[in-house]
Amino acid sequence: MSENSSNNGSGFSRRTLLGTTAVAAGVGLASGVGLSATTADAQTKAAAPKAPAARPAVQKAEVLPGELDEYYTFFSSGQSGEMRIVGLPSMRELMRVPVFNRCSATGWGQTNESLKVLTEGLLPETREFLKTRGGTYMNGDLHHPHLSFTDGTYDGRYVFMNDKANTRVARVRLDVMKCDKIIELPNQHTVHGLRVQKFPRTGYVFANGEDGVPLPNDGKILDDKKQYHSIFSAIDGDTMKVAWQVIVDGNLDNVDADYQGKYAFATCYNSEEGVTLAEMTANEQDWVTIFNIKRIEEAVKKGDFKEMRGVPVIDGRKGSKYTRYVPVSNSPHGMNTAPDGIHIVAAGKLSPTVTVMDVRLFDQLFDDKIKPRDVVVAEPELGLGPLHTAYDGKGNAYTTLFLDSQVVKWNIDLAKRAFKGEKVNPILQKLDVHYQPGHNHTSMGQTKEADGKWLISLNKFSKDRFLNVGPLKPENDQLIDISGDKMVLIHDGPSFAEPHDATIVHRSKINPVSIWDRADPMFADAVKQAKADGINLEADSKVIRDGSTVRVYMTSTAPAFGLEEFQVKQGDKVTVYVTNIDAVEDLTHGFSIVNYGIQMEVAPMATASVTFSADRAGVYWYYCSWFCHAMHMEMKGRMLVEPKTV
Amino acid sequence: MSENSSNNGSGFSRRTLLGTTAVAAGVGLASGVGLSATTADAQTKAAAPKAPAARPAVQKAEVLPGELDEYYTFFSSGQSGEMRIVGLPSMRELMRVPVFNRCSATGWGQTNESLKVLTEGLLPETREFLKTRGGTYMNGDLHHPHLSFTDGTYDGRYVFMNDKANTRVARVRLDVMKCDKIIELPNQHTVHGLRVQKFPRTGYVFANGEDGVPLPNDGKILDDKKQYHSIFSAIDGDTMKVAWQVIVDGNLDNVDADYQGKYAFATCYNSEEGVTLAEMTANEQDWVTIFNIKRIEEAVKKGDFKEMRGVPVIDGRKGSKYTRYVPVSNSPHGMNTAPDGIHIVAAGKLSPTVTVMDVRLFDQLFDDKIKPRDVVVAEPELGLGPLHTAYDGKGNAYTTLFLDSQVVKWNIDLAKRAFKGEKVNPILQKLDVHYQPGHNHTSMGQTKEADGKWLISLNKFSKDRFLNVGPLKPENDQLIDISGDKMVLIHDGPSFAEPHDATIVHRSKINPVSIWDRADPMFADAVKQAKADGINLEADSKVIRDGSTVRVYMTSTAPAFGLEEFQVKQGDKVTVYVTNIDAVEDLTHGFSIVNYGIQMEVAPMATASVTFSADRAGVYWYYCSWFCHAMHMEMKGRMLVEPKTV
Repeated sequence: MSENSSNNGSGFSRRTLLGTTAVAAGVGLASGVGLSATTADAQTKAAAPKAPAARPAVQKAEVLPGELDEYYTFFSSGQSGEMRIVGLPSMRELMRVPVFNRCSATGWGQTNESLKVLTEGLLPETREFLKTRGGTYMNGDLHHPHLSFTDGTYDGRYVFMNDKANTRVARVRLDVMKCDKIIELPNQHTVHGLRVQKFPRTGYVFANGEDGVPLPNDGKILDDKKQYHSIFSAIDGDTMKVAWQVIVDGNLDNVDADYQGKYAFATCYNSEEGVTLAEMTANEQDWVTIFNIKRIEEAVKKGDFKEMRGVPVIDGRKGSKYTRYVPVSNSPHGMNTAPDGIHIVAAGKLSPTVTVMDVRLFDQLFDDKIKPRDVVVAEPELGLGPLHTAYDGKGNAYTTLFLDSQVVKWNIDLAKRAFKGEKVNPILQKLDVHYQPGHNHTSMGQTKEADGKWLISLNKFSKDRFLNVGPLKPENDQLIDISGDKMVLIHDGPSFAEPHDATIVHRSKINPVSIWDRADPMFADAVKQAKADGINLEADSKVIRDGSTVRVYMTSTAPAFGLEEFQVKQGDKVTVYVTNIDAVEDLTHGFSIVNYGIQMEVAPMATASVTFSADRAGVYWYYCSWFCHAMHMEMKGRMLVEPKTV
Repeated sequence: MSENSSNNGSGFSRRTLLGTTAVAAGVGLASGVGLSATTADAQTKAAAPKAPAARPAVQKAEVLPGELDEYYTFFSSGQSGEMRIVGLPSMRELMRVPVFNRCSATGWGQTNESLKVLTEGLLPETREFLKTRGGTYMNGDLHHPHLSFTDGTYDGRYVFMNDKANTRVARVRLDVMKCDKIIELPNQHTVHGLRVQKFPRTGYVFANGEDGVPLPNDGKILDDKKQYHSIFSAIDGDTMKVAWQVIVDGNLDNVDADYQGKYAFATCYNSEEGVTLAEMTANEQDWVTIFNIKRIEEAVKKGDFKEMRGVPVIDGRKGSKYTRYVPVSNSPHGMNTAPDGIHIVAAGKLSPTVTVMDVRLFDQLFDDKIKPRDVVVAEPELGLGPLHTAYDGKGNAYTTLFLDSQVVKWNIDLAKRAFKGEKVNPILQKLDVHYQPGHNHTSMGQTKEADGKWLISLNKFSKDRFLNVGPLKPENDQLIDISGDKMVLIHDGPSFAEPHDATIVHRSKINPVSIWDRADPMFADAVKQAKADGINLEADSKVIRDGSTVRVYMTSTAPAFGLEEFQVKQGDKVTVYVTNIDAVEDLTHGFSIVNYGIQMEVAPMATASVTFSADRAGVYWYYCSWFCHAMHMEMKGRMLVEPKTV
């Protein structure tokens, strides 16, 4: 297959686009008609695997035994709700970090330490709602993991990420690779795009409200779409409190920020503010919304806001001095700032173009010296379904074409010259990917230190690229060498739902610990309770009874728990605190109680705790569930639950 | 590092073994003393990555873009509770199949279809116990995934697996790669080893009860260890009902079966029947328990059993005609049948030996013509901490050495000749692995079609082999080329807790579908309910109200749901049925309701449903959460929840 051909066997043909364009133009949508039968047939026929392409790559994906990857990649997992850490170039998953999901292995969602993170940032009405649902949400839709910045590059402190499903923002600590904060955003309904302030530091985490709902959304207003509003939030990344919000027109999609610390900008679809597909795509144009951070901060200081649920909410609808709306074609999607600190690119999605803006012109735009479209400095036509753009730091951009199933490499300067009327073609190369790419990313490409070595294309469909695993297929994260003149496809990386977004970070930026600090805030509550009980967690194994409340403290050190048995009464409220006193790298213990549904991870020098009601009488063995020693299987004990006397 | 050197930098030195042996001998266990400080220091010092080894391998791990893996590997995930499908040799994870865990992406544990699988096989008292815990266990400890056999090799029907944490056995269908049955084993407490009948077919699934508890375990007996019993279960793999159980002495560990359909055999530790570490390891010898399947079946027919919880329970304790106890050294662990159909190997764990038995001698043993130890035909000393053995079909065996961090290749015939007194060394090669290997597996090596191409070593510690990801490290599944004379390490595969066990199957044995059959039993309940409501699931989108019970039926076809809105009343019990009518390979839809914690997968031509109480009034958008189309983001609708009138 030629590198420049469009990919008609990949499921979504130009024919399909025309179909959706027809829908977009308001021609109508017959319920039940998505892909045409023709397209479906073509897709079935295309199921034979392709022969491997020639590989004149200058870099290798394979990382031999004993070697280390050069980059960490922090992957979203979409509706899986976790964050993933993947090594690059090997594309091996190194760790799963539970965030919005429930994790059987680590006890995330069951330990007191994780429940605190999962619940303390919920709104009171959500806490009430979840009372009959186990106290926590069981799912999340984790879309965009982005690292904290200082001076335009990663500072190794945090990864921030959003939950589209339940309107939350979370933070993962990069020193221990655990989530330490989750907050629910008030006033907002869904969070789609999330990016962070790049300068002077993070600072703000920007979270796009995609869907409009009434404010407050208590059911008093239901089907009056004129009273639906979308909200843009800025969260303080240090305190994880919402700093301010802005009411906007339309549905916000993706967001990014400049390298000057002055502006954030978001693509916006459904400028029509419709509630049906036909309504949402009726207009020929939507827009990019630019937020003026300084003006908003001043408004907050001056009181030009309405306080809603304890948050200052600015009115940033059309005509506001806090925002500007730059018209771009229908349903724009990706929003990506170039490492040059000057250009930002909004991808067209339903238009074959991307729109390039110059952030240096935004001051004039806000001062009304120029018109919104005057900030546009290029608008190249790249192909069908442009979604996201990545950069190599050498003036080139890489845009995914969802419908064409391609990545297109193009040059920003050439696009600007073409925009001015010069007869130059900004497109340098098109590469087939497999299939239907969404986000893409380059190594360090979202910082001023873009190094132009690797590109990953996160493809939504994999179809024939892997052994058949049934009706549910993996997605396909493809690795592309961009260090030479031509992009070269190197590796297909299957992944469970849904990679969605990722950030590629040089390993020099990340320095985790291997042993927990006993003063870590993650288990400070346990330490406090132990102190009150006169327990030294690192040495004592003891049962404290306080009425029908029982606290069981035990150490774990391979191959034994500090207690080989403990006795409680049926109906007791029991909390077990396990402290792993093996200060040995990689020597994690687990604690599981058989037939009680209890399981938790206890990493070196950590304390973990779990609280449960001892509802079943009998003998229940507990055991170490994380392989720790040759006599790991013998590392166990018995919980004796004395029956209730009637 | 020499291939034959022992691995003193790997965390567990010979010194440590001596330490545990001292413990085993009853010398005592100081609480808080596991690894010695010396060992911990050595481990810390060993943290620098090693240089890659020379690779004279004849096979490659890398699978280029467009190529397919040759083998499916079905991986356990230990305390993660899911089954994983990994391609080999690339070692890429192709799919996660939720089983005992709760899955945010697929809605496993939330959809009615998955809840039926998760709850219908529970014992009544467990169902009662889980009422205040969300109705299902949230965790599992999935140890041993093994495929169904016909005539000594895989027949592509099912994978069976156990849950050590909550005493369950599950089955995954290989046509759709979804779990369709989970049963809780009565009378038993924990399931450790699980294997299946190889001949004439599966047939039985054998599940080892590890821990002894009183029968019944209702709290009337607590701390009287003489009344604790372990149970061995045989489950009918077709009906997923327990066929019979056997009470045994000691704690059962791993199990396997012969190629003749006559015997199953299990390693057994804690023959002392102690409840503390010191007690459990006091004896110099434990045993292998052999189960005579024909005699047990006859006993069931004749009524020589006690019925407990509806299951015939045979007394197989020492002296029984149904079992034989073959003494082997202290705490044996792995139990593996060779592809020659003759030899079975029990690994020593706390002894440096493995014990080879000849199954052809078992008839005579049960007829009391020979003594138990007469079935032993070899007992080679291989190294420290032998755990599991795999085979290449050419007469060689590969045993993991946990303490030495090595795989040892040895020859069965040479071991037999040495056992008879000949001066030959059965050990052919020792290869360092990184670090502390547990299970190992060869391609097709657990069948009569062992092909001697690949070996994987599932190592419990990875420490310095990957980029540091914090206190919790991945494990390391290493791929070894065994097609030549020498084993060659090819690839390091990081994996999240805990690979534990795996089965490598040639791709020719597995033939999944890509589109669900509309007559599939997985969603038969939904089809039945729809029929009663006069709904054609593949065409109709409609709301049926029945008092405060509401059934919402909708199709999904990219990029639209059949309903763009539906209205319910606060407090209604709502069931949403989504039917994906895109009969297009890989076109999975998702269904998520924002701020309601609802999420499910709907693969091509499947129906999925979820039931919830509409407790929150207001407007709640639902959206497609599985990327399906260029206009995927516009694929959504609104649930309008009318407030309760007081």
